[in-house]
Amino acid sequence: MRLAELSRLSGVSTATIKYYLREGLLPPGRQVNATTAEYDEGHVRRLRLVRALIQVGRVPVAAAKEVLAHVDDDSLGRTIRLGAALWALPQDPAPDEEDPAVVTARAEVDRLLRMLGWETARELSVLSPVHRSLVVAVAALRRLGYDWDAELMAPYARLMHQVAERDLDFLETHASEAERVETAVAAAVLFEPVLRALHRLAQEEESARRYGIV
Amino acid sequence: MRLAELSRLSGVSTATIKYYLREGLLPPGRQVNATTAEYDEGHVRRLRLVRALIQVGRVPVAAAKEVLAHVDDDSLGRTIRLGAALWALPQDPAPDEEDPAVVTARAEVDRLLRMLGWETARELSVLSPVHRSLVVAVAALRRLGYDWDAELMAPYARLMHQVAERDLDFLETHASEAERVETAVAAAVLFEPVLRALHRLAQEEESARRYGIV
Repeated sequence: MRLAELSRLSGVSTATIKYYLREGLLPPGRQVNATTAEYDEGHVRRLRLVRALIQVGRVPVAAAKEVLAHVDDDSLGRTIRLGAALWALPQDPAPDEEDPAVVTARAEVDRLLRMLGWETARELSVLSPVHRSLVVAVAALRRLGYDWDAELMAPYARLMHQVAERDLDFLETHASEAERVETAVAAAVLFEPVLRALHRLAQEEESARRYGIV
Repeated sequence: MRLAELSRLSGVSTATIKYYLREGLLPPGRQVNATTAEYDEGHVRRLRLVRALIQVGRVPVAAAKEVLAHVDDDSLGRTIRLGAALWALPQDPAPDEEDPAVVTARAEVDRLLRMLGWETARELSVLSPVHRSLVVAVAALRRLGYDWDAELMAPYARLMHQVAERDLDFLETHASEAERVETAVAAAVLFEPVLRALHRLAQEEESARRYGIV
């Protein structure tokens, strides 16, 4: 398809598509002559992902380029490719390791991972920005005097593991590895608000069931 | 206790406490003479909540005041009191009802709630900003071409209902109704990052189990 058709199908203006092409966020089309290029389904899919990252996820262009470089790197194993793409998303800054709340939070997270038998999460803990985010979030709770510990978190972690199993089952319905990584990244940005809203709605429903509406 | 002790216990400076008192975010202490007031455990707890809202949740002062007014209103039934406090937190703007993605998203959310038998969530759907957030989040997915429908969301909603049951079980371990509402509000602001991090960590763990690390 030509540029105009790509714009129509994706709902992205031709000016914005040209900008994405210049920035290397979208691979060039197949040049058919000096002024015309052909685009395909892969371009439509990639545009969708770029919009998810930049317009919805508000990921800076430089970070989006890094994410996409990992999505495209088929020399990597699946876990690393997925991880690298997700890890390139904007992350929490490193916590202050002198802060007693951070020290306790890190110890509780480590105890949690042992309780759950999440061996990889423990092995990757030095590298993974997700592990860091958990420490930061637990430290924020503890700093305000809420004593969240491994025992309190464990049942939530087990439920979130069931959610993660569904996530990966869903990814496996996609045919190609590139589509899987793309979907994983889009889900990280777009699906989290859905999950958060479902959680809050479930709280309202359960509260009404237990205590009535008025 | 005196102001200095309240400051030490809560880790909030006396200047900030005085600001919160002036703004009505913290109820006045019991005046013992013209220049001295006594504070109690309730003030320590309330300061913790105010910090959670303003410093961690970045809730504007005016919105925080509204949240706290509902927390303090013991004329309300529990579901409404909890709901009113949570609904006063900053919420998504109303979606554009002319947008076809919003129309479809709303229909899918309605179908989901029927499938699940979440009757209260359906009854409150016109009022609830949580319901609106779900429509907005699903519309964002659909606008980018990801066809999330009721069938895909239902298993996630069921898991989130199990999470909500734990949330309420945990609230019920608190003695007083005021503490329960306070904890619910703090959890909405502080616990969501923990849940999100647990979800992502579970994804890494499950991905490594299925596909190996390299």
